[in-house]
Amino acid sequence: MIQDIAQRYFAEIDRTMRQIVALAPDAPDLHVMLKYPLGWVDEHDQPYDRATGKRIRPMVVLLCAEAAGGDWHDALPAAAAVELLHNFTLIHDDIQDDSPTRHGRPTVWQIWGRPNAINAGDALFTLAYVALQRLETTSTPAVTLGAWRIFNETMLELTRGQHLDMRFEQQADVSVDEYISMIRGKTSALLSACAQIGALVGSGDAETARHYAEFGLNLGIAFQIHDDILGIWGDETVTGKSTATDILSKKKSLPVLYGLAQSNTLVKIYERPQFSDADVHEAVALLDAAGARTYATGLENTYYERALAALEAAEPIGAAGQLLRGLAAWLFARAY
Amino acid sequence: MIQDIAQRYFAEIDRTMRQIVALAPDAPDLHVMLKYPLGWVDEHDQPYDRATGKRIRPMVVLLCAEAAGGDWHDALPAAAAVELLHNFTLIHDDIQDDSPTRHGRPTVWQIWGRPNAINAGDALFTLAYVALQRLETTSTPAVTLGAWRIFNETMLELTRGQHLDMRFEQQADVSVDEYISMIRGKTSALLSACAQIGALVGSGDAETARHYAEFGLNLGIAFQIHDDILGIWGDETVTGKSTATDILSKKKSLPVLYGLAQSNTLVKIYERPQFSDADVHEAVALLDAAGARTYATGLENTYYERALAALEAAEPIGAAGQLLRGLAAWLFARAY
Repeated sequence: MIQDIAQRYFAEIDRTMRQIVALAPDAPDLHVMLKYPLGWVDEHDQPYDRATGKRIRPMVVLLCAEAAGGDWHDALPAAAAVELLHNFTLIHDDIQDDSPTRHGRPTVWQIWGRPNAINAGDALFTLAYVALQRLETTSTPAVTLGAWRIFNETMLELTRGQHLDMRFEQQADVSVDEYISMIRGKTSALLSACAQIGALVGSGDAETARHYAEFGLNLGIAFQIHDDILGIWGDETVTGKSTATDILSKKKSLPVLYGLAQSNTLVKIYERPQFSDADVHEAVALLDAAGARTYATGLENTYYERALAALEAAEPIGAAGQLLRGLAAWLFARAY
Repeated sequence: MIQDIAQRYFAEIDRTMRQIVALAPDAPDLHVMLKYPLGWVDEHDQPYDRATGKRIRPMVVLLCAEAAGGDWHDALPAAAAVELLHNFTLIHDDIQDDSPTRHGRPTVWQIWGRPNAINAGDALFTLAYVALQRLETTSTPAVTLGAWRIFNETMLELTRGQHLDMRFEQQADVSVDEYISMIRGKTSALLSACAQIGALVGSGDAETARHYAEFGLNLGIAFQIHDDILGIWGDETVTGKSTATDILSKKKSLPVLYGLAQSNTLVKIYERPQFSDADVHEAVALLDAAGARTYATGLENTYYERALAALEAAEPIGAAGQLLRGLAAWLFARAY
């Protein structure tokens, strides 16, 4: 299913991204700092044959362009733009979180230091705009300028989400509403922009594009909640992460925030400096008893239903429309 | 002279910038992190009445718009954009350089930490694009898209310049040509964009705008060399910095790079871990003997003449044309 989509679009997305990244300034080592996080080379600029990430976002752009009645090739500049933007945020994110690895490799700042990683991120950010601007070669000025406006608003939402995410680490009580507001910016805004820009390029119609934006936004929120559930109750053989990882790392994910608001015993456990295996089991049992899993699953379904309703309101056509429904179903088929 | 220009434009530049920054996401503390570096508030969000920086860049945008035959008000979105972009680069720069102060105040990262400063910079970067995009309210789609293209290319040049600047700190031999290439990106590219975008908005003519770009680029290089000369031979009572500051800090400015290539004795002095007053005097004497000051002054004049020639080729009109010539003269009247 997802493989079919990937096969259709993947090579063209990759080709467009490579064209754009080749426009990066010709300065020693700068190109490798941009190609490395995209999974094209290793740190010594030697070929590296595992693309990082699944390129979900650019695929959503192209599917929505086609489902909205357009030629998906016209949306390739936007598809490259969202993937470059996404990767720029990861580079800065890893500095901000002090994360040493990503996709099983050292992060950019680990290899080249923080000052270079900040600059590489800024360059990739710029290249996202360079890519998007190329919509003028496939679309009308009105569509290109409209896509630019959406992109700007999305970036502001991303900085808001990032700001809140960093703030929540220092904050004792984070409410479920605050958390949803944070992931709306940090995770969902970009997926919403992917759908909206894709549909705008495909249809030229801002109203149609708004339905797709709604689809992407709700899909993004549901997806993040799904991920949060997997982080606690996921099947290790499927997710590849050991179960309850998010408990061990004390991640303030949705089920945990809900549970902390319900159970004082859980609050006490979370005050312990380090978790033993017994603590983890007790925490999961308390979350279950507090109904955290039921609550999270219910909320996920609410957003998933909203996403599907928005997609139907958008009246997607043809094979791409079916693939979009399939993509949504696939994202939520990951076992828990 | 410069005061006349400032009076004409300053209030409107400030008003436009404030409108744009007000569009930043509404999240606790994020607005103050953006208003603080612009000199509008102190770190507690209380009014602070000294605007940081002279707003030279937005003034160049507006002067060029008017000198190219347009209404300067139409270029206000671009004027705000270049100043926001400039300030974004300073926030990231200060993290990269580990600089604790700027304009006599603690830097953003000093107050709010590096992770927040990275994000505040990214937000200001985005707001620069938000401002620029508003050209669509005053200009044709072709002009707006053209300005966007220039802005993107400029940002790529800025990341190239920053990359080289960081690299040169680790590099034993930096040639004068490499140095000029670095400041072309780090300092001159943005001034070039200011002139080019201003003229594009004012005239709607890409060819005219190219002359202005040439003017800005050469003016920027000449200005940086002028600054480098002031850092060694400047009149303390005029510059407000103690003479030979750049020697003490071992800054690899143009005269120093030229001198190091001429004098092995100077190379030996620069190998000393710390400079005494006697060392500073000896270094300056060696630079004088090597003809570094004459060389730098000559190069400055070359670029200054090129800037003026490009300006005349652009055929600037009216009072704004005169003011542009005046601004150029003023920038180089700072005593040394």
